[in-house]
Amino acid sequence: MDPESKIVLDTLWVILAACLVFFMNAGFGMLETGFCRAKNAVNILAKNFIVFSVSAMAFWAMGFAMMFGNGNALVGLSGWFLLGPDNSPATEGAYSGVFASLDWTGVPLAAKFFFQLAFAATAATIVSGAVAERIKFVSFIAFSFILVALVYPIGGHWTWGGGWLSEFGFADFAGSTVVHSVGGWAALTGAVVLGARAGKFRADGKAQAIPGHNLSLATLGTFILWLGWFGFNAGSTMAADPEAIATISANTFMAAAAGCLMATITAWLVIGKPDLSMILNGTLAGLVAITAPCDSVSIASSVLIGTVAGSLVVFAVLFFDWVRVDDPVGAISVHLVNGIWGTAAVGLFAAETGLFFGGGFRQLLVQLFGIAAFGALVVPASTAVWLGLKYTLGLRVSPEEEEEGLDLGEHGIEAYPGFTQARPQPEALEIA
Amino acid sequence: MDPESKIVLDTLWVILAACLVFFMNAGFGMLETGFCRAKNAVNILAKNFIVFSVSAMAFWAMGFAMMFGNGNALVGLSGWFLLGPDNSPATEGAYSGVFASLDWTGVPLAAKFFFQLAFAATAATIVSGAVAERIKFVSFIAFSFILVALVYPIGGHWTWGGGWLSEFGFADFAGSTVVHSVGGWAALTGAVVLGARAGKFRADGKAQAIPGHNLSLATLGTFILWLGWFGFNAGSTMAADPEAIATISANTFMAAAAGCLMATITAWLVIGKPDLSMILNGTLAGLVAITAPCDSVSIASSVLIGTVAGSLVVFAVLFFDWVRVDDPVGAISVHLVNGIWGTAAVGLFAAETGLFFGGGFRQLLVQLFGIAAFGALVVPASTAVWLGLKYTLGLRVSPEEEEEGLDLGEHGIEAYPGFTQARPQPEALEIA
Amino acid sequence: MDPESKIVLDTLWVILAACLVFFMNAGFGMLETGFCRAKNAVNILAKNFIVFSVSAMAFWAMGFAMMFGNGNALVGLSGWFLLGPDNSPATEGAYSGVFASLDWTGVPLAAKFFFQLAFAATAATIVSGAVAERIKFVSFIAFSFILVALVYPIGGHWTWGGGWLSEFGFADFAGSTVVHSVGGWAALTGAVVLGARAGKFRADGKAQAIPGHNLSLATLGTFILWLGWFGFNAGSTMAADPEAIATISANTFMAAAAGCLMATITAWLVIGKPDLSMILNGTLAGLVAITAPCDSVSIASSVLIGTVAGSLVVFAVLFFDWVRVDDPVGAISVHLVNGIWGTAAVGLFAAETGLFFGGGFRQLLVQLFGIAAFGALVVPASTAVWLGLKYTLGLRVSPEEEEEGLDLGEHGIEAYPGFTQARPQPEALEIA
Repeated sequence: MDPESKIVLDTLWVILAACLVFFMNAGFGMLETGFCRAKNAVNILAKNFIVFSVSAMAFWAMGFAMMFGNGNALVGLSGWFLLGPDNSPATEGAYSGVFASLDWTGVPLAAKFFFQLAFAATAATIVSGAVAERIKFVSFIAFSFILVALVYPIGGHWTWGGGWLSEFGFADFAGSTVVHSVGGWAALTGAVVLGARAGKFRADGKAQAIPGHNLSLATLGTFILWLGWFGFNAGSTMAADPEAIATISANTFMAAAAGCLMATITAWLVIGKPDLSMILNGTLAGLVAITAPCDSVSIASSVLIGTVAGSLVVFAVLFFDWVRVDDPVGAISVHLVNGIWGTAAVGLFAAETGLFFGGGFRQLLVQLFGIAAFGALVVPASTAVWLGLKYTLGLRVSPEEEEEGLDLGEHGIEAYPGFTQARPQPEALEIA
Repeated sequence: MDPESKIVLDTLWVILAACLVFFMNAGFGMLETGFCRAKNAVNILAKNFIVFSVSAMAFWAMGFAMMFGNGNALVGLSGWFLLGPDNSPATEGAYSGVFASLDWTGVPLAAKFFFQLAFAATAATIVSGAVAERIKFVSFIAFSFILVALVYPIGGHWTWGGGWLSEFGFADFAGSTVVHSVGGWAALTGAVVLGARAGKFRADGKAQAIPGHNLSLATLGTFILWLGWFGFNAGSTMAADPEAIATISANTFMAAAAGCLMATITAWLVIGKPDLSMILNGTLAGLVAITAPCDSVSIASSVLIGTVAGSLVVFAVLFFDWVRVDDPVGAISVHLVNGIWGTAAVGLFAAETGLFFGGGFRQLLVQLFGIAAFGALVVPASTAVWLGLKYTLGLRVSPEEEEEGLDLGEHGIEAYPGFTQARPQPEALEIA
Repeated sequence: MDPESKIVLDTLWVILAACLVFFMNAGFGMLETGFCRAKNAVNILAKNFIVFSVSAMAFWAMGFAMMFGNGNALVGLSGWFLLGPDNSPATEGAYSGVFASLDWTGVPLAAKFFFQLAFAATAATIVSGAVAERIKFVSFIAFSFILVALVYPIGGHWTWGGGWLSEFGFADFAGSTVVHSVGGWAALTGAVVLGARAGKFRADGKAQAIPGHNLSLATLGTFILWLGWFGFNAGSTMAADPEAIATISANTFMAAAAGCLMATITAWLVIGKPDLSMILNGTLAGLVAITAPCDSVSIASSVLIGTVAGSLVVFAVLFFDWVRVDDPVGAISVHLVNGIWGTAAVGLFAAETGLFFGGGFRQLLVQLFGIAAFGALVVPASTAVWLGLKYTLGLRVSPEEEEEGLDLGEHGIEAYPGFTQARPQPEALEIA
């Protein structure tokens, strides 16, 4: 194919995939809102909506430069505000400019930025669910800005920006670790620093279910996320490579389906009912898990990876309840636990380098090392930011505001005026 | 165009169209949930969500092989689990492998599977609406698996898999019969075997309206379905043929618009008000009807086909109420009745072979024969499965569970906790 | 690239962009429904849904011909019902036919129609929000038909159909004026002719907030609109031009983000809280404003344009309250005010012709002149139609129906039966 045609095709694909990834934010917003209580719905909607805009500014000003800009093995140091020499679109070694780490994709710079921005904002959105129903609006905005401007790009540079981790052969095709575990670690530290919602744990430590207010919305959100994930995974080719995008799409579909079914079965056996929130989170778990290996495994392996993910997420939710980490939507179980699982799965199932396919232990060890490296980056960094915010802007709303709902306290409006709501809203149903 | 470019273009189109078709399931889910009562919302969401995952496994393991695999005139018999020789992507007669019936599309095998899987799952989803609010969750899952693994692929093989019906020249471009009437027949037999919901028919036989709980959701679902249908119809080219996809898209739009308007007018005249559920179902009726002829008719014919569909659906809904078949969302009227109409319309309006365009009666008779053949396949097959499930797993929830709502009985959670709902929920408003 | 490949690529892009624009209507529907009261939800959903079908018929029969058909400097006069000679797809000067004004895009006629139809319907949808909760269903349908059949195409012909305004160099790439201000002017005249909703203004003239019933829906709608806008702006290339679509997509993203953030800040300062409705409308304001200049400005300029838009929309909402124009969803502030701002912004920020980039005042004056010309077209025309409807079909529902809700009066059903709603629904909360 002539280079001109290739540029057009690749750009079309990247732009449309970016649109799908963009739309995932609507999915996250609806999922999180549906899984939380009506009295906090406006706040959650506002958080999920504005985080994309905050991320856009952070990634434009700094994040993209630190992630993909020329620099050293640790961080990119050029291309602030997308400025600097860049002859994109350029193919086949013709690239010259400040974003050399993206020289392998022959699309215009604006397309690279658009796609990667949609990715970056996703990491911040993941955090939102775990800190919901108690975090101050302004502090969440500040955290998101710092995450997307500084923390996410550093890990991203290590892996996708030509940094030291990529040198080892660490493989994370579409971001089980680079995106999902980064969001997941930040979610975990946030949930720990913030503490649990009032009423989540009884005096004896037993977790109480706090049901979400709208499972239609949560289900719609998961459908949207599943849709968007085709762009997330298959778009990470950043090129219209027909074999790759077809294989990745099919793998993504099958891993999600397997996660869905296995979570349903696991919940049925463990909790006694096919719990809808587990059905939805099982699907997302399968999607997160296939994100790293989606380009390098078979359909059968994808089904296996998704199956494990679907089971893992159910036990992870129960585990975090047990250790008294309050994660209203299960974001840590979905994104951190299965981000780790998916990244490790590359070392097990990858067609050439995976342990189960004759590749020996090398890839698996590199994967585990990379997972640990990201934990070592994000846990201290995000903890420091959460604590910094706690002692400056303040992190948590007042107990009175939490009781009344953040919608009135933070935003002065309700999500559903005109509908009588049972008051007090259910806060303390014992988990069956 | 060089073959390499063509493969890239065709694959891009098929993958993106498959994404649109995939998203239709969200549309079906929201439509059905919105048209049913709040006490069954979790169950309906769960059914519509999990059916895609069940279908994925069924179609991967068996369905795709039986539909498109090499075999005989009745059924495909190779390519289980997508395994077997296949040199896709291959264009212009270069294909060799076990899926010879798809040799006309030059995309990778994974792309063929992804697109056709999204189609197959649609057939199962159609059934969901007609059996809603009274079917056992596990039995619906079992039925869906069998439908997608066995029944849908057999009819599909007859028509699109190189089977006997295609030999006659039966024309069903995107599946008015192959997808929609299959789902519709299975929906009809299911509704009959299950019987009506408690309170749907009075002792004197008169039907009562049981209003859905959320028409915002139902409207959103219909918008999503309309969007997805552009992928469903125009994607069925499985090739980036510019004239075809442009014409099909425009025809699809106009038939839907005509169905919408005619259903509105018909409802206004017959029922006395522009009923929103009829506006939505009229649009879907137009979409189902244009699905078979979308590639072979003019815009003006599309408008006519949609107009008839919009009127048909209103009378069909009244008819099924009159014969005491309880179809909570009108799925039979939309998918079966208009699947038949649309398939017949090919014989009337097709540019070269249609009766009104000088083609004589031959195409029309073939169409009617094909419609009947699918009825003769699906009615007994689906009835047998429904009855088999009835006498094994059991098909219908207990009267107490139906009264209380399937959400608590089947899933142990409510869709909208925290919102006071009028109890008992409205079950018996007389149709105006 | 060979012409055949170009036609395929351009068609793929235009069709997919048209699908995105189509989906915007779901966004408008959910936004408007969420911002209004539950008692009028069915009516609003029905209006937003049917308007697409009405527009389809109007644009097919007349609108497309009057907008793009060969004619004179004022109006197109050929191509009714898409009929007439047309050799599309034809590239590089090879076009001959009745739609010469679209000879620059080498896609099939049906693709041109599909894309432009999705655009045209948008103009009608904009009006819907401003006249919500009090207009008669049938009169809204009639107004929409006339707007799309006659008014919108005339302005469109002036600018995009080879008419007199394009001769002056008036630049409106994707329709800040051609689409949004047309909808906005018609919304303004409609709101004025209809008068305010009961309870909106106290006897002393002070505006009262009438809160929308579902901000989850409104937020989802805005996400969908933002997504669709990538098709709206980048699709207006009507060609798969990689540099253009990448730049336009990134500009669109950043202007929306800036509008979102600035509206949040402005609302926080002026109203005292980060009001979610302002966050959403600020995003839309940024999107409307970048629509005209999206192809000709830098990312930094896009951020500036969006920033101004985000502030403008907050003050515009307060202004229209102050002058007692009742616009339930802020459509006039979003689409008219920022349509004007965005069109003027071309004259300020355009890379070569803008005042701030060395182009002098010429472009700015042409832009202001074009803005005025559209006002001079749409204000009298839409006022005449509104008044004509007022004295024939009647424009406003009865006070009793308005009090009870249009859902029961116009459609005979409720949107959310089964949910207890506080009655009377909140109509008169004083603005804080």
